[in-house]
Amino acid sequence: MEENYSVYRRRIYYYETDKMGIVHHSNYIRLFEEARLDMMNKIGINYKELEEVGIIIPVISVSCKYLIPLYFDDDVSVYSKVTKFNGIKMEVLYEIYKKDNESVCTIGQSGHCFLDKEMKPFRMNKLYPDLYKKLIKQVEH
Amino acid sequence: MEENYSVYRRRIYYYETDKMGIVHHSNYIRLFEEARLDMMNKIGINYKELEEVGIIIPVISVSCKYLIPLYFDDDVSVYSKVTKFNGIKMEVLYEIYKKDNESVCTIGQSGHCFLDKEMKPFRMNKLYPDLYKKLIKQVEH
Amino acid sequence: MEENYSVYRRRIYYYETDKMGIVHHSNYIRLFEEARLDMMNKIGINYKELEEVGIIIPVISVSCKYLIPLYFDDDVSVYSKVTKFNGIKMEVLYEIYKKDNESVCTIGQSGHCFLDKEMKPFRMNKLYPDLYKKLIKQVEH
Amino acid sequence: MEENYSVYRRRIYYYETDKMGIVHHSNYIRLFEEARLDMMNKIGINYKELEEVGIIIPVISVSCKYLIPLYFDDDVSVYSKVTKFNGIKMEVLYEIYKKDNESVCTIGQSGHCFLDKEMKPFRMNKLYPDLYKKLIKQVEH
Repeated sequence: MEENYSVYRRRIYYYETDKMGIVHHSNYIRLFEEARLDMMNKIGINYKELEEVGIIIPVISVSCKYLIPLYFDDDVSVYSKVTKFNGIKMEVLYEIYKKDNESVCTIGQSGHCFLDKEMKPFRMNKLYPDLYKKLIKQVEH
Repeated sequence: MEENYSVYRRRIYYYETDKMGIVHHSNYIRLFEEARLDMMNKIGINYKELEEVGIIIPVISVSCKYLIPLYFDDDVSVYSKVTKFNGIKMEVLYEIYKKDNESVCTIGQSGHCFLDKEMKPFRMNKLYPDLYKKLIKQVEH
Repeated sequence: MEENYSVYRRRIYYYETDKMGIVHHSNYIRLFEEARLDMMNKIGINYKELEEVGIIIPVISVSCKYLIPLYFDDDVSVYSKVTKFNGIKMEVLYEIYKKDNESVCTIGQSGHCFLDKEMKPFRMNKLYPDLYKKLIKQVEH
Repeated sequence: MEENYSVYRRRIYYYETDKMGIVHHSNYIRLFEEARLDMMNKIGINYKELEEVGIIIPVISVSCKYLIPLYFDDDVSVYSKVTKFNGIKMEVLYEIYKKDNESVCTIGQSGHCFLDKEMKPFRMNKLYPDLYKKLIKQVEH
């Protein structure tokens, strides 16, 4: 994995499995959310504080490819990074790996928009320049 | 089952199972919630409308005995009824049965309190006498 | 909606919402599963029986666009249909609508493969010709 | 808290909340499971390995009192310990605390039985004396 990914690591819980014996496919979407909020926290954006200020970041799209199943108690690392950001919309990419295994198990993506309390887009670079800078920094090279 | 129970029926979803091949024990608590809100609806109390008026009914306790496991695609009926109500607190009892089987599979109970927007108890019989009457009627004989 | 869609209808549960007040985006993926298994049932394929025979249909990809949020107690209809099938892989398309509203709220897609007990692909048209016919019929015009 | 409790700590995920803004009551039951399996791991019992040997520990009862709500991003510690064990059945007690707060937020309990592959009780002290010793040690003083 490239170094500009953020890494979020935990074990798979029992209740995340289904009768097929593997993690239910809907739970990867939740794991992405955990990784995304952890990644944002690490670049200085605490989502709880954002919501308190009146900013929400709803999910507008999600996609996932399940390549290798995850099992109960697997030690997984979710690599995530912001791949697009324009002040209004954001895209995040995810890759899940198991410990001691080089093969990628899952590849995912989520799309988001930034909305204010009235559920409307707002001028982030004007109203919240610090937030804007932290995010735009993620997609600059 | 006695006749003063409300009956809520549906099939078990695939994602409700875990790797043991049975419904995960946490999901019965969700099934109770479905049954409870359906039962309240049937006695004329729509929970969505209650919340719009500013009344919430948080869960303050829950208990469950798992006697016979539920499986994917099982056709289950959740019997529920209000067993206690005093204007401030409410208790609901649940029993889950499978189609064509007389044995009770699950027995549960939940405790609730009625709170206003400020998360405080309120005088329901004064402020919402209609709501009070509908609920007190459930526990009178 | 076109007529060759299968329709699955139910109300949104309270526990499907999150603190944003809307259905959590991971729960749409579960709703798709409910709709897919219901649709397969209607064309004569009971997934529980398939698993008993030794056939599983894991999800290999999923995608979803969230256009209009779903709320607690919304009366939703999930339209689904098989859009691709070649004896080994299958694709299903989903669209979610609210009652009395013509706008599509959610568009989704899931990809699946058919595997035997050893988690390997098998010749469905040879081994399970009835199953094959039921599915191929869905994508023929 | 007394010192013979095992402590499991993590933050509350966004998807664990509901539209009331607090953690949905069913999710505490899942948090108890995480804490229980972590506690068992710490006393030398890996649940994944148990299942591989053919031992399952289904939940036969659960109860929970919700005293103080948990919120998104709360840093919670789940204290758990085995309170009863007789070779066939086990009881586990749980208490949830928030960081920097002495008040207990949640008190829970779960009952379990040990079953073999045929879903039948077995003589653990004869068949798995090491497992028996690890568990009986928890309830001896």
